[in-house]
Amino acid sequence: MTATRELLPTVAPPSGACCAPMVREAIDPEPARELAHAFKALSDPARVQLVSIIAAHDGGGACVCDLTEPVGLSQPTVSHHLKILVEAGFLTRTQRGKWGYYAITPGSLDRIAESLTGASPLGR
Amino acid sequence: MTATRELLPTVAPPSGACCAPMVREAIDPEPARELAHAFKALSDPARVQLVSIIAAHDGGGACVCDLTEPVGLSQPTVSHHLKILVEAGFLTRTQRGKWGYYAITPGSLDRIAESLTGASPLGR
Repeated sequence: MTATRELLPTVAPPSGACCAPMVREAIDPEPARELAHAFKALSDPARVQLVSIIAAHDGGGACVCDLTEPVGLSQPTVSHHLKILVEAGFLTRTQRGKWGYYAITPGSLDRIAESLTGASPLGR
Repeated sequence: MTATRELLPTVAPPSGACCAPMVREAIDPEPARELAHAFKALSDPARVQLVSIIAAHDGGGACVCDLTEPVGLSQPTVSHHLKILVEAGFLTRTQRGKWGYYAITPGSLDRIAESLTGASPLGR
């Protein structure tokens, strides 16, 4: 096993267009499509659990080897879910030796939250 | 046509369990399932557009008759999407004469946003 990335590239976080506020004025079709894509990545219970576990993980990223037991799924299935979350911009992946380590892409969850609440989060 | 509800009952907003924060500590399977269900309702571009249009609508709710043209879909298709959003707790529906009028369930978008950001929204 080399130190090169094994399964997944690290992708850029969602673009600004992704998280245009959807509650202040009617959103255009393209940002609506991008937002829907982000929500789709979170539309599976296992992926919600994975994001939650990784977000709550103390620094340094969570190893895929530590994620299978809490969600009760096989490693290939967990890797599949993680890939979807990386591609949607919620997770970043780094390779350390044998394992991939996953961390929340900074700001990615906030941007989705902002899109739901407009300029004044929780003010609605 | 009567004043009784024509298509959809008004449902209660999502339960508190729905929107347990998913970023402060690892979420349990049941709230993860409920959150995933909420995200799934928002995982379609047309539904994101509909929520956006209704949220931006000036008071009194948006008539289904006003929603078809902006999203470019037939009324049955729009009604199908609206039903999913009502069932997920994002919209409430009231009947006025011939038409159903839709409004954002107060707090429903905020609760989802809070689940993404934890106790301190935008602080992450």
